[in-house]
Amino acid sequence: MAIETVATARAFGGTQGVYRHASDATGTPMTFSVYVPPHVPGQTLPVIWYLSGLTCTHANVTDKGEYRRTCAELGLIFVAPDTSPRGDGVADDPAYDFGQGAGFYVDATEAPWAAHFRMWSYVTEELPALIAAHFPADMARQSIMGHSMGGHGALTIGLTLAERFRAVSAFAPIVAPSRVPWGEKALGGYLGADRAGWRRHDAVALIEDGARVPALLVDQGEADHFLAEQLRPHLLAEACDAAGIELTLRMQPGYDHSYYFIATFMADHLAWHAARLG
Amino acid sequence: MAIETVATARAFGGTQGVYRHASDATGTPMTFSVYVPPHVPGQTLPVIWYLSGLTCTHANVTDKGEYRRTCAELGLIFVAPDTSPRGDGVADDPAYDFGQGAGFYVDATEAPWAAHFRMWSYVTEELPALIAAHFPADMARQSIMGHSMGGHGALTIGLTLAERFRAVSAFAPIVAPSRVPWGEKALGGYLGADRAGWRRHDAVALIEDGARVPALLVDQGEADHFLAEQLRPHLLAEACDAAGIELTLRMQPGYDHSYYFIATFMADHLAWHAARLG
Repeated sequence: MAIETVATARAFGGTQGVYRHASDATGTPMTFSVYVPPHVPGQTLPVIWYLSGLTCTHANVTDKGEYRRTCAELGLIFVAPDTSPRGDGVADDPAYDFGQGAGFYVDATEAPWAAHFRMWSYVTEELPALIAAHFPADMARQSIMGHSMGGHGALTIGLTLAERFRAVSAFAPIVAPSRVPWGEKALGGYLGADRAGWRRHDAVALIEDGARVPALLVDQGEADHFLAEQLRPHLLAEACDAAGIELTLRMQPGYDHSYYFIATFMADHLAWHAARLG
Repeated sequence: MAIETVATARAFGGTQGVYRHASDATGTPMTFSVYVPPHVPGQTLPVIWYLSGLTCTHANVTDKGEYRRTCAELGLIFVAPDTSPRGDGVADDPAYDFGQGAGFYVDATEAPWAAHFRMWSYVTEELPALIAAHFPADMARQSIMGHSMGGHGALTIGLTLAERFRAVSAFAPIVAPSRVPWGEKALGGYLGADRAGWRRHDAVALIEDGARVPALLVDQGEADHFLAEQLRPHLLAEACDAAGIELTLRMQPGYDHSYYFIATFMADHLAWHAARLG
């Protein structure tokens, strides 16, 4: 389980690193970033997972997420994986919302995607083992957040592995991929036409089917062009209401889908996570 | 003096915009960014100028500078110009440290640069007039900061127009361009071989020649690869010491030349400026 250090830089008293490794899950090289805040040698720290949206790599949130100041203040490790396998030997699609850069955090079952598009296994199994092995991480204290497609990933992973993640939050998440164009295309393409198999990768369906977490935090910009067609947070609100899950859904006037929106509310989310990570 | 809005986004309760206009100074289209914090309609706010380094456009600090949270808290407008004229009809050089992306904040006198490379006039005259006309700016309260080549620009402009700028600070600035390779190449190329003409564009020489400001703040990473050959902050310290200028020069262990370094100390600089802007 070797990892290669691509680059490191001092930031807010800690270390922002970018790392690469040969992934067994995807069968490709994978790149991810980790911020380790200032800490006492030997100390282990809680880990926040951040899953990115369509077209992103680890670099978008690393450059523009503005998480380091708060992670340094609160003593949080921040991990940002890529959004799909990549490379010449990896299947792709010319659209921005399918194929490379659009892994949707599932293990694909359909050809030609099944060979490499195994982002569920990558994010929930392989990468956590690397983080545990190579960083001062307290793996008993993990939480997960994400944006858009990555908000979908954070919600579905957080709901499925509720014993692992002490907090789950999202910025402008896709909450019901089975019922919106982005999700129908991706889940149909990666998992096949049988919609029964999609429910494990649909946060609203997971809640309908019994998955539970104590609480969720979601921020959603009201000026987000994807709000009505692709994101539909009221579907999550209805599911949480029926299930007794405490959802804090904050509609933010004037905010769009960009990293300006994410950065604005990042510190709130990190503080919310830190309070639950102990 | 029309400007075109390229994009705006809500951020930290204010508005991050990118704008374009036809510049008289450079004879080209020029792009810049402005962050306007939340404010009461009719209120005017102090203006902080941020000048960027080699290879940068307005976008680098806009994406990675992490200034918006503090500007929103302190009520500061943040303006980020481009670093040179650009375009097919504009002279260029294949090197990263000369020509487009490397204007060095001078009005070039030498061919072929003199036609468009008029960044001193652009930043000190034309763009301030646009900011005054189009934004809720209190032009009686301005300050200036910059990074690397932009630190050079902030220091030379701040020292030359000391009555305009109430605070001057820099991240890893080129303090004595006449005495380092980047500066000798740029000032020689843009201003010609007569070194007497370079002194107006050399912060240390300006101080030696009598320019004064009450105080300067400079942060410099000790792991910055450009420190010894190109930046040489001890030359500024010696000049300030001889001139009685209060220089706060903070050598920061482990920090490099990147925006991770800038972002780490941005809030400190903004607070230092705000205290002087009243």
